[in-house]
Amino acid sequence: MNTPLSEFISQYQTRVEQQLESLFSDLKHYDTPLLKAMKHSLLDGGKRIRPLLCYAAAEAISEITPATDAFASSLECVHVYSLIHDDLPAMDDDDLRRGKPTCHIAYGEATAILAGDALQCLAFETLTNASGDAEQKLAAIHTLSKASGANGMVLGQAIDLNAVDTQLTVDQLETMHRHKTGALIKAAVVMGAISAKASQADINALEDYATALGLAFQVQDDILDVVSDTETLGKTQGADAERNKPTYVSLLGLEAAKQKAESLRDHAIAALSSFGNRADTLIELANYVVNRRN
Amino acid sequence: MNTPLSEFISQYQTRVEQQLESLFSDLKHYDTPLLKAMKHSLLDGGKRIRPLLCYAAAEAISEITPATDAFASSLECVHVYSLIHDDLPAMDDDDLRRGKPTCHIAYGEATAILAGDALQCLAFETLTNASGDAEQKLAAIHTLSKASGANGMVLGQAIDLNAVDTQLTVDQLETMHRHKTGALIKAAVVMGAISAKASQADINALEDYATALGLAFQVQDDILDVVSDTETLGKTQGADAERNKPTYVSLLGLEAAKQKAESLRDHAIAALSSFGNRADTLIELANYVVNRRN
Repeated sequence: MNTPLSEFISQYQTRVEQQLESLFSDLKHYDTPLLKAMKHSLLDGGKRIRPLLCYAAAEAISEITPATDAFASSLECVHVYSLIHDDLPAMDDDDLRRGKPTCHIAYGEATAILAGDALQCLAFETLTNASGDAEQKLAAIHTLSKASGANGMVLGQAIDLNAVDTQLTVDQLETMHRHKTGALIKAAVVMGAISAKASQADINALEDYATALGLAFQVQDDILDVVSDTETLGKTQGADAERNKPTYVSLLGLEAAKQKAESLRDHAIAALSSFGNRADTLIELANYVVNRRN
Repeated sequence: MNTPLSEFISQYQTRVEQQLESLFSDLKHYDTPLLKAMKHSLLDGGKRIRPLLCYAAAEAISEITPATDAFASSLECVHVYSLIHDDLPAMDDDDLRRGKPTCHIAYGEATAILAGDALQCLAFETLTNASGDAEQKLAAIHTLSKASGANGMVLGQAIDLNAVDTQLTVDQLETMHRHKTGALIKAAVVMGAISAKASQADINALEDYATALGLAFQVQDDILDVVSDTETLGKTQGADAERNKPTYVSLLGLEAAKQKAESLRDHAIAALSSFGNRADTLIELANYVVNRRN
């Protein structure tokens, strides 16, 4: 039996916070601006969607293991490093993130660049320190590095960067998002599955789920950028529209974007049919992603 | 029997170039600015000191293996990513590197940040794709991630950043360099040893060698910043002095700095006494580091 989603989220968000806190116990020079900047961005905030997906995928396969903890933390390190760099003046130039000043506003650009660099590195170091056998850890490192680099997340950010003030088609927008956010969301689910020693068939089904979920997440992000407010979002509302970035809402209109998010959610849930009720949390997470308000 | 150093350098620099080129064969979107920026900085230039040390350490233990190739490439990816970020306007603001425009001058700041991010990631992905058993690869990833993050190279850069316009002691300067350049140089030698399945005793001796060598390298860098010219250096001569950065030359004077480089070189060579002539290349590399002109 799965716990209801709100309980799952609350329990595992707390667990993620503890795990992320513990990553700093090995680090010297705790009081340097570098460490403070890393903690500023990594700790105390965030929905922790990727770690939650990682835990839920492990649960859907068999059970959450100590390896799942490390894998989940590493995903959040990569996600947060990408946010720090994405917020820089040379990139999106955002002042507000998760309701707090962005890293470069709080600690300066140079330290923010280094904090992002160190968090990416910490992700991989964390995976080498994980429980689990060497093959499992190596598979996780392989999955995370493929998903976050020049064929994955960073490529997506590069495409996004070049898309400002241009007219993308829906297909091009989707290609961008499949890389920018989709690749890491897929990695989250796959790494959770690896931590629970999943079969390849189960990993394939989870990848199908995660691909649809990742796009649904992004479509909902575009919707929230239009319909929410800065206080609820914890970041600047209307920022994409103001930068003249193409979004699902700008390309499809608000109603069609909402329908797309729901249809993707349905596809994601259908991909889990072979899992039975072991996948209840993943299913509820798919609903949560599309229904969330920030 | 080792080949003479110039032949070793020429042979393995060529091998490194080929290995680095091959990293791009898996990457899609070859013509994006992101990929061009990564290639601009990674290929066609550089002394490849870290890869050379990796190869020479493998040779000193037993023999160079296919794993050595991947380990050597990953070290250069990390080194080059750190140069790209270090050259950014928010950091050292350098226009010239290896005789070419720096990455952000050629491709803009945003793409340069992403190219650095992707190269760090590529380093770890390359290690997961290496030959060798899982334990060996995991040991290499552990070594590289520890050396390059918030306890290693990035910490060194953060200390360096905060040292501009301040008066450091020689000890503080050494702490900075042990992290900023020393950690990765040590990792290079250790990873070479891991690729050749070294014993822990041999790794300890090589770490002792690399610690002294890394400092010698830095002292010589400081000397060259004063005595060389921009054309020979391939980067802006006098840049450190102009930024009022503390250097061994500014703290010790030129003559004492030269003596320190030589004494460190002697220490490095002494650490290799148990290796006999298998370490000839490492010994010659120590001489090369202190005698180089760029």
